[in-house]
Amino acid sequence: MPSYKTPLKDIQFVFNELLDYPSHYERLKGCAEASSDLVDAVLNEAAKFSEEVLSPLNRVGDQEGCTWTPEGVIAPTGFKEAYKQYVDNGWPLLSVPEALGGQGLPSSLSMAVTEAVSTANVSWSGYPGLSQGAIKTLIEHGTDWQRDVLLPKLVSGEWTGTMCLTESHCGSDLGQLRTRALPQEDGSYAITGTKIFISSGDHDMADNIVHIVLARLPDAPAGTAGISLFAVPKFNVSDAGGIADRNGVKCGSIEHKMGIHGFATCVMNFEDAKGYLIGEPNKGLACMFTFMNHARLATGMQGLVHSEIAYQGAIPYAHDRLAMRSLSGPKNPDGPADPIIVHPDVRRLLLTIKAITEGCRALSYYTAQQLDLSEYGESEETRKQAESLLALITPICKGFMTELGLEAASHGVQVFGGHGYISEWGMEQNMRDSRISTLYEGTTGIQSLDLLGRKVLGSGGKLLQPLLAEISHYCEGLSTNADMQEFVAPLQDAVQTWQEVSMQAGAAAMENPEEVGAASVDYLMISGYTLFAYLWARMAQVAQQQISAGEGDETFYQGKVHTARFYFQRLLPRVATHKATLASGADNLMAMPEACFALN
Amino acid sequence: MPSYKTPLKDIQFVFNELLDYPSHYERLKGCAEASSDLVDAVLNEAAKFSEEVLSPLNRVGDQEGCTWTPEGVIAPTGFKEAYKQYVDNGWPLLSVPEALGGQGLPSSLSMAVTEAVSTANVSWSGYPGLSQGAIKTLIEHGTDWQRDVLLPKLVSGEWTGTMCLTESHCGSDLGQLRTRALPQEDGSYAITGTKIFISSGDHDMADNIVHIVLARLPDAPAGTAGISLFAVPKFNVSDAGGIADRNGVKCGSIEHKMGIHGFATCVMNFEDAKGYLIGEPNKGLACMFTFMNHARLATGMQGLVHSEIAYQGAIPYAHDRLAMRSLSGPKNPDGPADPIIVHPDVRRLLLTIKAITEGCRALSYYTAQQLDLSEYGESEETRKQAESLLALITPICKGFMTELGLEAASHGVQVFGGHGYISEWGMEQNMRDSRISTLYEGTTGIQSLDLLGRKVLGSGGKLLQPLLAEISHYCEGLSTNADMQEFVAPLQDAVQTWQEVSMQAGAAAMENPEEVGAASVDYLMISGYTLFAYLWARMAQVAQQQISAGEGDETFYQGKVHTARFYFQRLLPRVATHKATLASGADNLMAMPEACFALN
Repeated sequence: MPSYKTPLKDIQFVFNELLDYPSHYERLKGCAEASSDLVDAVLNEAAKFSEEVLSPLNRVGDQEGCTWTPEGVIAPTGFKEAYKQYVDNGWPLLSVPEALGGQGLPSSLSMAVTEAVSTANVSWSGYPGLSQGAIKTLIEHGTDWQRDVLLPKLVSGEWTGTMCLTESHCGSDLGQLRTRALPQEDGSYAITGTKIFISSGDHDMADNIVHIVLARLPDAPAGTAGISLFAVPKFNVSDAGGIADRNGVKCGSIEHKMGIHGFATCVMNFEDAKGYLIGEPNKGLACMFTFMNHARLATGMQGLVHSEIAYQGAIPYAHDRLAMRSLSGPKNPDGPADPIIVHPDVRRLLLTIKAITEGCRALSYYTAQQLDLSEYGESEETRKQAESLLALITPICKGFMTELGLEAASHGVQVFGGHGYISEWGMEQNMRDSRISTLYEGTTGIQSLDLLGRKVLGSGGKLLQPLLAEISHYCEGLSTNADMQEFVAPLQDAVQTWQEVSMQAGAAAMENPEEVGAASVDYLMISGYTLFAYLWARMAQVAQQQISAGEGDETFYQGKVHTARFYFQRLLPRVATHKATLASGADNLMAMPEACFALN
Repeated sequence: MPSYKTPLKDIQFVFNELLDYPSHYERLKGCAEASSDLVDAVLNEAAKFSEEVLSPLNRVGDQEGCTWTPEGVIAPTGFKEAYKQYVDNGWPLLSVPEALGGQGLPSSLSMAVTEAVSTANVSWSGYPGLSQGAIKTLIEHGTDWQRDVLLPKLVSGEWTGTMCLTESHCGSDLGQLRTRALPQEDGSYAITGTKIFISSGDHDMADNIVHIVLARLPDAPAGTAGISLFAVPKFNVSDAGGIADRNGVKCGSIEHKMGIHGFATCVMNFEDAKGYLIGEPNKGLACMFTFMNHARLATGMQGLVHSEIAYQGAIPYAHDRLAMRSLSGPKNPDGPADPIIVHPDVRRLLLTIKAITEGCRALSYYTAQQLDLSEYGESEETRKQAESLLALITPICKGFMTELGLEAASHGVQVFGGHGYISEWGMEQNMRDSRISTLYEGTTGIQSLDLLGRKVLGSGGKLLQPLLAEISHYCEGLSTNADMQEFVAPLQDAVQTWQEVSMQAGAAAMENPEEVGAASVDYLMISGYTLFAYLWARMAQVAQQQISAGEGDETFYQGKVHTARFYFQRLLPRVATHKATLASGADNLMAMPEACFALN
């Protein structure tokens, strides 16, 4: 794995120039502290911690993995110490409301920290990452006792949190879950059942772990309407918040898996474990969505993470590695061969990675602004609008960015040729680590159904229209800008396609509900490519303005314009294929009898 | 990993119904023994050996890997015993000419055996696989002594062979290699240098290993014109063929890599190792191409291998795993949920894997017929024609099929959701194992340059025209077949596109040689998708004929027709995007200054 260098200039380009975060923060209620100076200071410190502490542990985590013992899971060497530093330095408090003892900074700033932390060491980042969802769940749905006793420890990072949904027979289909919760005389519940795939379900990095667990009450209706949510601490907790005896929850084993070896994936056995009901009985799934939406945005960002790692590995290698001569004559005539960056197909791979990385970063922070607005928007209307846009974009961030992250990670291997397959370069670890991202927190298929079925068709197009209007409005504003026409014209086509396929999918769904599932992944990809086109056009525009004004680092801005051009000419055309396959309908999937899916 | 079941019915469909191998074998010179009965017997025995002996060792190889010791490399448990059985049963002799003690059966039959062996255990299959290239090299270019003394042991399988090209600073760019060969008084050469990435470079499975090594003579010209080829045995060999003392070649270390852990990838140190010149001095690279072309076809077949494994894993899982209800109402109302095979997007993944698997199989055996004809064609003209077609198709088989194999392997993981990431299901191993296939034996980029630059443009289109004519002729013959129009019309479009982009690439290359490299991978993919379309149309036609005639297993043939339809409606449309990106030209790759490829 290349040792990580935080791309501060790229992050600041997105923050300051593309999305004008300074003004954005000024408009948020109670976030006045988030001045540019503070943002810079936070980013610099996050960069330092990520580069110096986390990045060196990345390969250690992969090679050593986690260790199961009867007493509990032990994280890889150095993970615990790094976590202590993270907590001691107050990182978990960054975007926690001041009323809860936090710094009260906007969530977007935490996301920028998460970018650095996760890219430096994605396995390590999962441990504090999951706590965020537990915190939000307790803030929104917890009882006074849970907020007074459990929450402060999670907020400070002294304890961590998990999310216990999956059982061996059900993942996305939570209606099937079997874990039981029996009411006890003291008002608590005795939780019994086995959960699998519990990320950071057990470890030795924090004093206690609060599991957020889905289970069924004895009289619960079948299916998803009978699921309740509970907080189940690893160690029982006194009312003063002290750690008491061990609760009835243990890690039975950890999974052997393709990657993220440093991140413990646990089978968790609950045996009459003491649990505390969160929210109302049988309404657990709704509460859990708070958690899941947060986790989905964070997981979406992993597309950025894996693409950035591929980029940081491939760029120096392509400059350094000498092989063959350029097709148009030697570029390094005094050397034994030219650096491979002269070869068009190597550049195609590098530019694909670059366009994906920077597109993912732009989309991540564009989305983070909506997250901020949904939390700190000045008016109710602003908050509602942001929530709607967030609901629409979340499955796109998760589904589309992780699919592209996989592609970029694979290209990162390819640039290295045979060396890409060898562990010491880190490109193969990145590809293995990336492969989980389209699976957990809901597969790409699940995201696409959420997007097309629930969000777009479910709202009768209402969630989509404002975004399409925003992009169209942007294009109209550039109708007289000659330099931008190479981007604006195809962007307008893409928006029109997005609009058309939305109508088309809606009409088809009325005839046959299978059409939604048949169209959904193509629809997701068209949505993602169009959003990327919108953001790449905006990046090109900002860069062109800076070049015209003679401001800043011209090479940097040229890179943006060239990459935007590459995106429009070589990645956006993928929409054509998705449009064609989407239009081909459900029959070519559904007409084949089940018996034909056979081993012959 | 699913335990392997040889898809005999699918293989026999391609052999007997699609490609009429019985007539093909009758037309080969001296291959009359290859009767249908014999072919069936060979396939059945290969299936048995693959399923019973090799498949159970597949996960062992992954988990245990190879072990380096100062005395040599030890293959995973069971590999040596399996190899002994393979040799004792005479498998290596199958397609060796009778004059050399072999069975004299056509190469295509060996490829069918290789399909079964490789799918059961791709790591194991590499050990005997590499010997084939060494054998062909010695048959074509070896001295009498080499043919009399070394060859029989390789042919019998008692010894194995390797291919030592790569050095740490050069892989594809062999002109840079530094290994030296000093002439000795006895007519042999002292070879000194270090080779890396030497597959099966050392192991304990055979008594001796014959390394085929590229090195430079003292007075050799620089670059590729100064490379000679040598045979370097691990143990020195007496004139009677007996094993003498250890030669000066040792495995210095083995690589830790993403997958194919059971297949030793060695750093080989040559220190004054005794070597024997093969062919003429400084003409080594030309001799090596014999070896490489064979290896490229075999590697191309790995696309089939990894796709078949994904299929064999995903199909039973999709029938068994219960999750959610069908969008059009319950299909398994008495169960807690429907099997996931009812969901359109799961079917999209399964059909993609099925279309890739069966397309790869058809293309592999279509190509194998040309290999047979190039070796045993009755007339010089037939042999020449086959050689030309083979030269054209080899980079397509290698480049296109391995790219699709990666895709299929990844979809195999995706069908399993989170379980796909867990080692015990074997889908993640398959994906890790597959990732090497687009890298070794020349990356996809290298294959694409060979295809477009050397084969298509280099021959002025002469190599391509007969194939385009064959497909067009096929389409014309179906002009009155109404049932086939859904396939014939898009196939004709695809052929026309292939023709157009060939012209376009040629014209662009005359203006700017970078255009070749900028177009080549898109060109490779268009070629591959069109060839698949041709073969899928033919498979659909055969299946339709059988259904109309009421012959055979209707469900099986329906599966072919539906999968063909899926291919034409959902995979072939990818050509549109490749056509657009190809047409976008080299500027969007080459105009960006090198300095813009930077870490910011």
